[in-house]
Amino acid sequence: MRTTVGIIGAGPAGLLLARLLHRAGIDSVVLESRDRAYVEQRQRAGILEQGTVDVLRAAGAGERMDREGLPHDGVELRFDRRRHRVDFPALTGGRSVMVYAQTEVCKDLIALQLKEGGPLLFEAEALAVEDAEGDRPRVRFRHEGVEDVLECDYVVGCDGFWGIARGSLPAGLGRTFERVYPYSWLGILADVAPSHDELVYARHDRGFALLSMRSPSVSRLYLQVPAGTDAEEWGDERIWDELERRFETEDGWRLARGPITQKSVTPMRSFVHEPMRHGRLFLAGDAAHIVPPTGAKGLNLAVGDVVTFARALEHERRTGSAELLDAYSATCLRRVWQAERFSYDMTTLLHRAPDATEFEDRLQLARLERIASSRAAETDLAEAYTGFPLD
Amino acid sequence: MRTTVGIIGAGPAGLLLARLLHRAGIDSVVLESRDRAYVEQRQRAGILEQGTVDVLRAAGAGERMDREGLPHDGVELRFDRRRHRVDFPALTGGRSVMVYAQTEVCKDLIALQLKEGGPLLFEAEALAVEDAEGDRPRVRFRHEGVEDVLECDYVVGCDGFWGIARGSLPAGLGRTFERVYPYSWLGILADVAPSHDELVYARHDRGFALLSMRSPSVSRLYLQVPAGTDAEEWGDERIWDELERRFETEDGWRLARGPITQKSVTPMRSFVHEPMRHGRLFLAGDAAHIVPPTGAKGLNLAVGDVVTFARALEHERRTGSAELLDAYSATCLRRVWQAERFSYDMTTLLHRAPDATEFEDRLQLARLERIASSRAAETDLAEAYTGFPLD
Repeated sequence: MRTTVGIIGAGPAGLLLARLLHRAGIDSVVLESRDRAYVEQRQRAGILEQGTVDVLRAAGAGERMDREGLPHDGVELRFDRRRHRVDFPALTGGRSVMVYAQTEVCKDLIALQLKEGGPLLFEAEALAVEDAEGDRPRVRFRHEGVEDVLECDYVVGCDGFWGIARGSLPAGLGRTFERVYPYSWLGILADVAPSHDELVYARHDRGFALLSMRSPSVSRLYLQVPAGTDAEEWGDERIWDELERRFETEDGWRLARGPITQKSVTPMRSFVHEPMRHGRLFLAGDAAHIVPPTGAKGLNLAVGDVVTFARALEHERRTGSAELLDAYSATCLRRVWQAERFSYDMTTLLHRAPDATEFEDRLQLARLERIASSRAAETDLAEAYTGFPLD
Repeated sequence: MRTTVGIIGAGPAGLLLARLLHRAGIDSVVLESRDRAYVEQRQRAGILEQGTVDVLRAAGAGERMDREGLPHDGVELRFDRRRHRVDFPALTGGRSVMVYAQTEVCKDLIALQLKEGGPLLFEAEALAVEDAEGDRPRVRFRHEGVEDVLECDYVVGCDGFWGIARGSLPAGLGRTFERVYPYSWLGILADVAPSHDELVYARHDRGFALLSMRSPSVSRLYLQVPAGTDAEEWGDERIWDELERRFETEDGWRLARGPITQKSVTPMRSFVHEPMRHGRLFLAGDAAHIVPPTGAKGLNLAVGDVVTFARALEHERRTGSAELLDAYSATCLRRVWQAERFSYDMTTLLHRAPDATEFEDRLQLARLERIASSRAAETDLAEAYTGFPLD
């Protein structure tokens, strides 16, 4: 097989990249190791930055999002039994976010790709990227039991943290930066209307909690738990009791309970690989960087990466200049490190480390007080939450 | 001896309090364990917030400050060999700071007190505060070899971190919050014109450095060194070489050298004692809280405390209501924790911990980039640096 851009992975990064290239008249092939049902159902992020919403619309992939997604103009910070709302448009000159699950983004992009785009092969497991330093890099892969080779002009690894793209880099090339947090998120999906119409980020002495939603009738809730926790340790009633405690307010706010339909534990990690390019192999999304989910930046960073790549390749096609392709890694990393910083700050602002001192507890409260009382500090948060510019 | 307010300690907190009370027609006695020369010469802070400047002027103690002090409208952040200036008035609606050494503030207040104020006893060592829970607290002290007792309506402990006032609280009363940093500041005074007309805060892989000044002809410079460093380990040339390295820029900025006249090492600590009041004993300044010097907040917090006490006592005299005195601790602590937060953030933004990971190094740079590129983040810093409101 031959194509211009070989894309490894049909998560939101790979699917959106295929869509953007298709709209630019550049052909691609997407290889995805899992089947379609798996990709369409794995629970991940749910908050789209303003820039991500704009990109999806411009790519002709925004129709259902605009119909079913929930535009959110703020979040609530909850601490010390108090509530503080951060008003995004008022602080950022009109920017906001959209609650629309990654699963739905993937469904929309898969449908479009199968209808209008180039090949998208499910259960096609990439085995290796070869000759990334040459003019014709290749992806060796196995599809329906048969090994095959995809010859490309460029390969983009959108295959996540555990994917083979990063692993195909020569040993010792580049640097990695990492932090593993001593806590995880126990996440549930529950068939109950969300108890608040915007996300609630709660800092509590017992640990962090987050109220989110997937739709007007499905709640998504998270609890900070120790790293290594098994979701099965937590019975449904224990989960609701603990959520209730952490969301408690002085004004008597109530958390509605409902049947829990899914339960899982997500570890928390910060990770960056530099550079994000080696020859004609480009890394995008989780293949190059991981953020803890607190800042809702993972999906949005992946979108930023593939937009940057698609623009750079279009530029090369139009002008013959590879300058934007050459700048890909540096361009992405500026945005990545701002998202890493913000995700780290949101995480440490709201989670209670197992070895936290009383001094650190007070610092957290003072930081939250600062955000609640200084327009500058609040704007800093709102700008970062609604997204760093795609440029 | 009898007085209304017994003040322990003739640092800036105690001296300013005596002055404020004198202007309000309330008598006080100040007990200071050291002699006058010592108090007038110990090197401490040098940055007065806008609010501190305003208070000194209103107290009739601003004349020489306004003549000899250096108004500063910004600071420079230096990182990655780059320079970024933070413009205080532009970001805060006109607020700025004044460079005027604590030694000079003390000299001015001592001269005023001796000329116009109540008793100020040097070499008068407070030994204990007694009966703080009763109506007539007493300070036992030794002056010129003789033990004596100062009977008061109120006692204010302005005697610093190591003073006896906090130690006079009943054991187990209140809570302390503390963090000790694994590095110190090696500070020098040098007879050379400052190489820059505003303070320069430098983040470098080798550690933090700060360029400050005492006057147009005296530089004050600091180097991050490991905790426990002996100043004598550092020869003059080694100090200048290291400063030069850490201040290096891509635009060829030069550091001027000159004779070093003083050299000392300051440990770095964050500390808060809550509450700041027990009965009729009030703690103010370093007696209640310590900040690392990076945010230049120590002296200014002390000023905030004594202004709060003086206002509260005036209020009680005028209205008969003790409500502001009762609120003293909570009022001060709101401001104290904001300064603790800011001082911690400035410290960890700029210092390199001995066990810093590469991930943390990049976070520091991303934070500095953020301040240099977001008006909101820069305003947050400028507001905090020029001072939290005295209310």
